[in-house]
Amino acid sequence: MAEKLYLEDLYVGQSVKSRVLTIEAEEIVAFARAYDPQYFHTDPEAARKSLFGGHVASGWHTAALTMRLLVESVPIAGGLIGVKVELAWPRPVRPGDELRLESVIESVSPPRAGSDRGAATCRCTTLNQRDEPVQIMTAKLAVRARPADEGGGPA
Amino acid sequence: MAEKLYLEDLYVGQSVKSRVLTIEAEEIVAFARAYDPQYFHTDPEAARKSLFGGHVASGWHTAALTMRLLVESVPIAGGLIGVKVELAWPRPVRPGDELRLESVIESVSPPRAGSDRGAATCRCTTLNQRDEPVQIMTAKLAVRARPADEGGGPA
Repeated sequence: MAEKLYLEDLYVGQSVKSRVLTIEAEEIVAFARAYDPQYFHTDPEAARKSLFGGHVASGWHTAALTMRLLVESVPIAGGLIGVKVELAWPRPVRPGDELRLESVIESVSPPRAGSDRGAATCRCTTLNQRDEPVQIMTAKLAVRARPADEGGGPA
Repeated sequence: MAEKLYLEDLYVGQSVKSRVLTIEAEEIVAFARAYDPQYFHTDPEAARKSLFGGHVASGWHTAALTMRLLVESVPIAGGLIGVKVELAWPRPVRPGDELRLESVIESVSPPRAGSDRGAATCRCTTLNQRDEPVQIMTAKLAVRARPADEGGGPA
């Protein structure tokens, strides 16, 4: 993708893939101790007796790693600013999973009168090493229109 | 609230308040470096020139802290297991903000045939020290029905 994307650079069906990122057990435990202290996230041994049958990452950890991959792969000018999102976690993330993100632009709306930002909707699917979705997110982003003094397409 | 809540202990309109939690600039920077490396989260000085006019927390950081408050204040038996959520961030979270959570049960659905889990929908509003919502989340949770060998109400 281009260096900096303005609203005019986005189109429906536009698709981007991220790099791959591996999630490890220690990270899963550290994140969960801080933000989601439930035994199936913080205690790999006890987690065997949980609904998940083993140690799993917090869905919020998956969401946070997804944001990292989104920031790296979708360089919106002025930053990725989420207005609202929908998230589903169809299956758990386990230690050693290799996560990657596929993002597809689903809609682009022009700025309202008086605003320099329009909206874009992005469907962001986080996949594991078996190409199974572990998180499906639809995010509405506030995206800047290209300033009048920056003509032409993306650099 | 009770020690452990089963599906039968939840009812529409049930409301819970969490403790208050203060978010500090160093935490905002550390979370953002790991998961949302955008300058308005990682660089308090440069953030002054952003849309936000100052240093703000990642929405994912607010979501993660909200989960911590939810785990502490809503003790679902067997754990809080989110199936899907909707999130909106109506205003930014800034260093020193004092966050608290108000959770209200909006719906309760019985288990389908053959399952030991039903569903509950919870509207979780994260508020700052001025009682302004900084995050509004609607979460669909998978909640266990009370096992047959555990009669009676919550302990």
